[in-house]
Amino acid sequence: MDPFKIRNVKCFVSLICFVLMIFKGSVHGVPTLASERPDRNNAPAFARWLVAENTWGVLSTIADDLGGSPFGDVVSYSDGQPKHGTGIPYFYLTTLDPTGRYALKDHRSSFTTSEYLLGTCGKIDPENPACSKITLTGTLNEVEAGSEEADMAKKALFSKHDEMKNWPKDHAFKIYKLNIEEIFLIDFFGGPKPLTVDQYFLPKSEGRWE
Amino acid sequence: MDPFKIRNVKCFVSLICFVLMIFKGSVHGVPTLASERPDRNNAPAFARWLVAENTWGVLSTIADDLGGSPFGDVVSYSDGQPKHGTGIPYFYLTTLDPTGRYALKDHRSSFTTSEYLLGTCGKIDPENPACSKITLTGTLNEVEAGSEEADMAKKALFSKHDEMKNWPKDHAFKIYKLNIEEIFLIDFFGGPKPLTVDQYFLPKSEGRWE
Repeated sequence: MDPFKIRNVKCFVSLICFVLMIFKGSVHGVPTLASERPDRNNAPAFARWLVAENTWGVLSTIADDLGGSPFGDVVSYSDGQPKHGTGIPYFYLTTLDPTGRYALKDHRSSFTTSEYLLGTCGKIDPENPACSKITLTGTLNEVEAGSEEADMAKKALFSKHDEMKNWPKDHAFKIYKLNIEEIFLIDFFGGPKPLTVDQYFLPKSEGRWE
Repeated sequence: MDPFKIRNVKCFVSLICFVLMIFKGSVHGVPTLASERPDRNNAPAFARWLVAENTWGVLSTIADDLGGSPFGDVVSYSDGQPKHGTGIPYFYLTTLDPTGRYALKDHRSSFTTSEYLLGTCGKIDPENPACSKITLTGTLNEVEAGSEEADMAKKALFSKHDEMKNWPKDHAFKIYKLNIEEIFLIDFFGGPKPLTVDQYFLPKSEGRWE
């Protein structure tokens, strides 16, 4: 082949790769994953992966001023710094928003997120059970300000939500955590995967990861 | 300029456009918008746009078997066929999943979705008030099977969720609707936008759109 043409082809390919790379980096809302999607038959690993990789979801509380209705709110969260997930979702909330206020009156809460946000569901519908989803039910509480846990949680949150550190001081954002009591995990057909809280928190070294 | 080089440059540009087009089409989870983002000061139009453009979110109900906790579930929905939104979110649920079962026992419910899913929030955080979010609170009920409304809702759902028409018949999926009683809309800083249900449902012809 004519060397000039070969150089042209190489140039084309490089340029396309470069454009794709730039474009991919700018695709809004599709995060770069810190670890690969686990085997869906390993429920604890799958649940921990979903919670560790996602960065936002819906936090539901009981709205005392709306007749006790469940009230879902879009929130950001973090369960730890990248690759150091704890499994516990921490939030940065202000009582200027209803969710924090509701939680202080009635701690019952759930947090829900979807694999759809990670871009790994392919072309299937978000409600299709093969696109996994998780609902963690429990109690939502403020973490004691200045405690070791609050400091750890703040680092975890800021590591995934860079702008949080600049959020207005006068809004009095506080760290909240969900104390998980029940786990509802759908990661394929056949109904929710049996998964206890103990299994969910079992450390990697004790066989959580296959 | 040498005509050969010009041809090459044109070819480069076309190729890049083509690659971008293909790549954009395949970006998972970023829908093509049917209409432009309205002015955020027009709360009814903004709320209707958010509900019409999105296709999934979190539906929260009261979990009677989890001590009355709020239970958020990832669901798909439609408020009408593209460009013909009604403002009412319709769902396709089976009582094999908890949400339908919970709703039949306690109708109190809310539906939450975020502008983040539309890819129009730029690089800001999903919890940043400039990335809009809506929570519709009310009651969740089954729509009478075979009714005109059920037929309309089914068409609305299938128009945005192609695979739904092939979902297993033996799962007995039914149409549910949220009867909206309260609207919580955040579309900028400064707290929720005042927005009544009447304003939300005011037809375009009566000045809903600015």
